Amino acid sequence: MENQKLEFTRHSKTDIFIGTELFPNIAAKFNIAGLPKSCVIITNETLSKLWLDQLIKAFTEKNIKVNSIVIPDGESNKNFETVQNIIAQLVQFETERDCPIVGFGGGVVCDIAGFTASIYKRGVPLVLIPTSLLAMVDASFGGKNAINTSTAKNIVGSFYQPVLTFMDVCLLNTLPLSQLYYGLVEALKHGLIYDMAYFKFIIKNLEDIKAKKLPVLQRVIRRSVYIKKEFIIDDELDNAKRSHLNFGHTFGHALETAGNYVRYNHAEAVGLGMLMAIKAALNVEILKEDFSDQLKEVLAQLEMPTDISTDISVEKLTDAIKSDKKRAHDAYKFILPETPGKTTIYKVKSEELDDFVKNAIV
Amino acid sequence: MENQKLEFTRHSKTDIFIGTELFPNIAAKFNIAGLPKSCVIITNETLSKLWLDQLIKAFTEKNIKVNSIVIPDGESNKNFETVQNIIAQLVQFETERDCPIVGFGGGVVCDIAGFTASIYKRGVPLVLIPTSLLAMVDASFGGKNAINTSTAKNIVGSFYQPVLTFMDVCLLNTLPLSQLYYGLVEALKHGLIYDMAYFKFIIKNLEDIKAKKLPVLQRVIRRSVYIKKEFIIDDELDNAKRSHLNFGHTFGHALETAGNYVRYNHAEAVGLGMLMAIKAALNVEILKEDFSDQLKEVLAQLEMPTDISTDISVEKLTDAIKSDKKRAHDAYKFILPETPGKTTIYKVKSEELDDFVKNAIV
Repeated sequence: MENQKLEFTRHSKTDIFIGTELFPNIAAKFNIAGLPKSCVIITNETLSKLWLDQLIKAFTEKNIKVNSIVIPDGESNKNFETVQNIIAQLVQFETERDCPIVGFGGGVVCDIAGFTASIYKRGVPLVLIPTSLLAMVDASFGGKNAINTSTAKNIVGSFYQPVLTFMDVCLLNTLPLSQLYYGLVEALKHGLIYDMAYFKFIIKNLEDIKAKKLPVLQRVIRRSVYIKKEFIIDDELDNAKRSHLNFGHTFGHALETAGNYVRYNHAEAVGLGMLMAIKAALNVEILKEDFSDQLKEVLAQLEMPTDISTDISVEKLTDAIKSDKKRAHDAYKFILPETPGKTTIYKVKSEELDDFVKNAIV
Repeated sequence: MENQKLEFTRHSKTDIFIGTELFPNIAAKFNIAGLPKSCVIITNETLSKLWLDQLIKAFTEKNIKVNSIVIPDGESNKNFETVQNIIAQLVQFETERDCPIVGFGGGVVCDIAGFTASIYKRGVPLVLIPTSLLAMVDASFGGKNAINTSTAKNIVGSFYQPVLTFMDVCLLNTLPLSQLYYGLVEALKHGLIYDMAYFKFIIKNLEDIKAKKLPVLQRVIRRSVYIKKEFIIDDELDNAKRSHLNFGHTFGHALETAGNYVRYNHAEAVGLGMLMAIKAALNVEILKEDFSDQLKEVLAQLEMPTDISTDISVEKLTDAIKSDKKRAHDAYKFILPETPGKTTIYKVKSEELDDFVKNAIV
């Protein structure tokens, strides 16, 4: 038996721009990034009515040729069917291999645009313009994307880095307040895993944030981007440090599943999931100081639940955790707080899972 | 406007093993590569009848748990539907993120297994065991995979490197002779773009190759693997040197399309495509020495056509080239021979394409 070896190194780079009224600057950044004078925008129905004309104008004024693909709103369309429809249109537009796909939207659009860009012609450049706070602080950079199948959520996807991400705070003006709150839960999470001063900054400035004062929103985005970067920069493929960003998410995903994706939305589930993680950490005595009251208070101000409704059974929650992606060989990985502002990876053995979950119920 | 940057470096490594009766060694290599004690085999109906029991036995004897997924034979199943069916089964098997997918088959299986491995849970380890000569010298290493949509061939895919590739020459014993010839056309191509001595070696040993003498087949595979490696090692994502491997393929794909994928199979089309590339290179005077007779002779011995049937119109061919992936901004890239054993990238302007193709007809 003879042996030959092959080794590859792949580099990628994202330039993230944060500011107000960025549309007029996008085309110039395209040039600097070496992108060609064409692009395909992917957006959803709601956003296309609100912003698409302005975005197209910003491109065409700078002689960038634009095609647009409008997908239906909502998580339920984050599937293979939508991806296939987009690909059929890309083929019809004769989209070339160097032509960027511009995802303009919230998390669903960022996910679909990212995944499609990663597989059309084996990868075309990706540009993201997130329109929700949640997408700005999470889905629009770091390269994770995913789609759902009929039997599993986020089961298919890729790691594919955008070349450019534009976070235009002005876009938040048309964002419903409830959706602003979803983003804030992620931002609070960034504080809890890395920097309690940031967590307290959000609480202190909550009124201004709710009033959508753009400078404070921009500070939130800046800090969340910085913190997320710290966790992903050395772990693009999510094998180690990146997993801390899952704080509240293992319990959260289980709550979403146990509630049939109706009882809790993602942010509510993550908020409760973080409370569960605090309680679990106290129970297993890796956390000494109970700081859940601070979190409960701010969640309440964001109109989020702070305890689990009685119709969610522990059994259902445990079953959901068992089928989650975070499982690895009969041990379940949880991100638990050690102190406020610092988390650790904690493994729970199969036989201990039931008790662990039961004792974490809030 | 403020700016934050993110940079990532991704490493990947493939260990390629070439030899006879490799099955008993596969499990040991799994251990060395750090893979877990489980895998999911993807294969097709024909191969499952011939070899699957033996392959499963090789794993289970070494305590590696195996699930198998059998897909229907043939290129027509290389599509989203098959991928979705596989993913549904992976979910059903509760396949974990570190569990390797083992693609056991020819080019179609390697493509589907590779693409699926690259997107299931954002990427699981990939192991390939090619069963055809063509897959051994091409699809089973280098990381390119693709599937078809109803309107475009190989339009969707990814660059995703296998961790391990096992080329077991014994598997060629059950390969139909015509399919052995398909692989030889690729091998001849490797000679023509890099090493005429190898081209001549194949011609000299053609009788032994046709008789499936394993040592000579193993030498062919070894040399083709080596040559392909030279072209991809510094160009994983196919932006420069890797494109030389497309020698004969731009014309070839056009012939396949113009013949509605019925008139010529891939190998026949590539064989004719190489003859067209030689003629085109002579016409534009970048090649001085016409070596097409040598190629025609060996193609004939492989029962391949050496001239284009009159029912293929130049117009159809040109149209097909226009919609090929190799187009980039109104110029068409062709890989043409400069001398026997050395190719160059040659750009043809839009307005010159008709004449260029017309003059290349063989």
